[in-house]
Amino acid sequence: MRRVKKTSTALLSAILFTMTKVSKVKIFAPVVALFFATGLVTPLEGQSSTSVEEADAFYIRGLYDLSLTRGDSYLWLEYLTRRIGGRLSGSPEAAAAVTYTRQMLDTLGLDRVWLQPCIVPHWVRGEPEQVRIVNSAQVGTLDLRGLALGNSIGTGPDGLTAEVVEVRSLDELETLGAARLSGKIVFFNRPFDATQLNTFSAYRGAVDQRALGASKASRYGAVGVLVRSMTNRIDEFPHTGAMRYDDGAKPIPALAISTLDAELLSRLLQREAVRVYMRATCATLAPELSYNIIGEIRGSEFPEEIILVGGHLDSWDVGQGAHDDGTGCVQAMQVLQTLRQAGYRPRRTIRCVLFMNEENGLVGGRVYADSSNAAREYHLAAIESDRGGFTPRGFSCEGDESTVAAYFKRVGEWLPLLEPYGLGLRRGGSGADISPLKSQKGLLIGYEPDSQRYFDYHHAASDVFESVNRRELELGAAAMTALVYLIDKYGLSTQ
Amino acid sequence: MRRVKKTSTALLSAILFTMTKVSKVKIFAPVVALFFATGLVTPLEGQSSTSVEEADAFYIRGLYDLSLTRGDSYLWLEYLTRRIGGRLSGSPEAAAAVTYTRQMLDTLGLDRVWLQPCIVPHWVRGEPEQVRIVNSAQVGTLDLRGLALGNSIGTGPDGLTAEVVEVRSLDELETLGAARLSGKIVFFNRPFDATQLNTFSAYRGAVDQRALGASKASRYGAVGVLVRSMTNRIDEFPHTGAMRYDDGAKPIPALAISTLDAELLSRLLQREAVRVYMRATCATLAPELSYNIIGEIRGSEFPEEIILVGGHLDSWDVGQGAHDDGTGCVQAMQVLQTLRQAGYRPRRTIRCVLFMNEENGLVGGRVYADSSNAAREYHLAAIESDRGGFTPRGFSCEGDESTVAAYFKRVGEWLPLLEPYGLGLRRGGSGADISPLKSQKGLLIGYEPDSQRYFDYHHAASDVFESVNRRELELGAAAMTALVYLIDKYGLSTQ
Repeated sequence: MRRVKKTSTALLSAILFTMTKVSKVKIFAPVVALFFATGLVTPLEGQSSTSVEEADAFYIRGLYDLSLTRGDSYLWLEYLTRRIGGRLSGSPEAAAAVTYTRQMLDTLGLDRVWLQPCIVPHWVRGEPEQVRIVNSAQVGTLDLRGLALGNSIGTGPDGLTAEVVEVRSLDELETLGAARLSGKIVFFNRPFDATQLNTFSAYRGAVDQRALGASKASRYGAVGVLVRSMTNRIDEFPHTGAMRYDDGAKPIPALAISTLDAELLSRLLQREAVRVYMRATCATLAPELSYNIIGEIRGSEFPEEIILVGGHLDSWDVGQGAHDDGTGCVQAMQVLQTLRQAGYRPRRTIRCVLFMNEENGLVGGRVYADSSNAAREYHLAAIESDRGGFTPRGFSCEGDESTVAAYFKRVGEWLPLLEPYGLGLRRGGSGADISPLKSQKGLLIGYEPDSQRYFDYHHAASDVFESVNRRELELGAAAMTALVYLIDKYGLSTQ
Repeated sequence: MRRVKKTSTALLSAILFTMTKVSKVKIFAPVVALFFATGLVTPLEGQSSTSVEEADAFYIRGLYDLSLTRGDSYLWLEYLTRRIGGRLSGSPEAAAAVTYTRQMLDTLGLDRVWLQPCIVPHWVRGEPEQVRIVNSAQVGTLDLRGLALGNSIGTGPDGLTAEVVEVRSLDELETLGAARLSGKIVFFNRPFDATQLNTFSAYRGAVDQRALGASKASRYGAVGVLVRSMTNRIDEFPHTGAMRYDDGAKPIPALAISTLDAELLSRLLQREAVRVYMRATCATLAPELSYNIIGEIRGSEFPEEIILVGGHLDSWDVGQGAHDDGTGCVQAMQVLQTLRQAGYRPRRTIRCVLFMNEENGLVGGRVYADSSNAAREYHLAAIESDRGGFTPRGFSCEGDESTVAAYFKRVGEWLPLLEPYGLGLRRGGSGADISPLKSQKGLLIGYEPDSQRYFDYHHAASDVFESVNRRELELGAAAMTALVYLIDKYGLSTQ
């Protein structure tokens, strides 16, 4: 932790905090915030390097106190979720969310807030889907709970009926071949591996069925696809999510069914041939104009070095897009709010970006990176929060191989400041929206909350405001604020 | 990690696991469990100390796999919560829970399952409470959401009406004195400190109001007490919990109100004198016979050294007693189930204890310790899970000062085996039920899950089955199983 110039504010705040902790009568965070904000904290000289580290520890403690007592992320989230709801790209809800978050950023006293236009795909779900077992010897006719996968074509207004063939993997299609699959509905039913400690690992081990199943099955003449929902839970919620059609594959409709219904269907199939009727009127309309929402505090010393913190504003249409990714958006906004409340003057430019269209196109992330490259910008670091608003566990870092090892080592030096808050570090993926920035050779960082509950809600009607715990949300914002502060103050260079 | 004798099983399981992880075609946990259970795993000779540690790592991985795929804790919890419900000491629900958990322990193939009688207090809530603001100039007459505190007396059938005086601390009563408090209802309204990272710290900083408020206020002539609910959340749920009357204090009725109502009442009091009508028909009936439920696997080498794992079976009557402490009970049961499924033969005696009456008396914990002392038993270690069924964070340890430092150091040597599962260690409180065992000079261990959501549910109607995530619950059982395994295998002696 060299290159320290402006630690005096933090040092005095350290003294203040020490006072508050030892005194019987507690001085609460708002008082400390007042010191931050009124400029009563003025430079002191001559601190040792130990006191500098202590000063950082206490400054970060102050940022946490502000985040837990004066942050507005939870209120913003309530509006985005309960008032606006699901925010699929191109929808009126997505447009409302653009307007709302822009207005909220305008209240924070940032140096600049703007909208960055992008043309997004516009897929619509249409009428409620129907998935129906017909004439089963065991259950007769029975409705299942289904949701069209994003980007899927519809079945046409009459729907389609066919026999179901269950598989557990894409490879199994080749084994079965067209003789067994032609004219059939392929049912992908490989569950999450429950022994994976991190549920994202289980997701990665299953999601090929959702993303690629239809294209692969279509090559063997299948007429439709049902996919077991991507979740650890056994429950009644179908989970949607993006799929894509490979070039050359004939598009066939693809729907998710709930894990409960997948278990049921699988049991029926062990004893009889099952025919299913499926109907979806989803469709892809003409592209729409939409926006990334951007706000920044300009750096006082190195304004050309950008530290980005962001999430994605769009979501699926079912549910309210709470954990995916309303929480990431409002956390990113709160990072800037907290720094403003602390009266912090960043050395580098700190930018909040709410990306559009992560779910079904990644247009916002691509437009942002293209525009940034065209303007010859440099993102020293980018942090994305897109794994839910759960209790913080740390950060995962990636980047260009020319810089990532050194930058990661640098961040590792700050672990003693982060570990008291339950934060660890690892090498690993960052976030979809910031991944196009990799060519700028900065550090790409994924905020990592606890993963256990994420896929309970992911892309389902259960992803609602009530599933978010206020403190877990705010602790996540605080964790990112602390990391932004350290990167801003010390940079990532190890010299 | 010396004194290693029986690691051969673990070593071969290590090899098995290594195979499963590197092969493309995954062999799932049940296969490994089969190896455990059928005795196909047989002794090997000559492993180095490094391979012993690796063997432990892989054995623990196997215990986790079993816990996440074959554990029944979630099913047991559903029965305890949704089928039986709140299990207040002395209630029919508590009796049903005794019968049910005993039956379930009987299915696990333990060496012994038994009930230990204890005479528990029997407090009943009576009719739904009434708390009503009367004739306010601002809101007229308005009902608040209130719950009598456990052990409180009732108001009598006519209820009582008095002016409300708000205070923030017990000390403030002395400042105000009888002149201001006599004939009044004292309203304790100090909120949780949101800046505490661990919510139990915030709880400890506020709970004196609930536990002691009535006795203190009574000394100044107050006629009743309202207490802001012990939670971080601002919501509509009142949270009950134990209070007690000091010797010599005249008992007065005490009710909790929701944090939303506490905020409202406080705002009204800033502008006018407010009178409140309160009515509760709670009462303490004659004590009842109840039981601790105990099951054990007898140790093969040191049966006289007991390793206890437990929770408390009773709960408050509102809600379903899910996180407090249905989760702790079913986790303790699953620890023994998993060890059985693994075919593990413990060196020491491993005992599951479901304590009765933790909430309003701690009779079960006292009876258990007295009986254990009378039988000259020795508990080498006792682990209690009573902080909710959330994602595991680690263990907090305490004990007799003659042994605790050495024992804690010993457990610390196993950190490399626990940290991959997000588990840390600290010195700190263990659990109420096991605390009377301290005189046996073993290590007392509190299982520590993430604390952020606990007080959302604690003692409230929201503490229901649906608030528990299956994986978080099972990961907690796995964490305790791993620690029990290490203590059993290596003991706690550092020689």
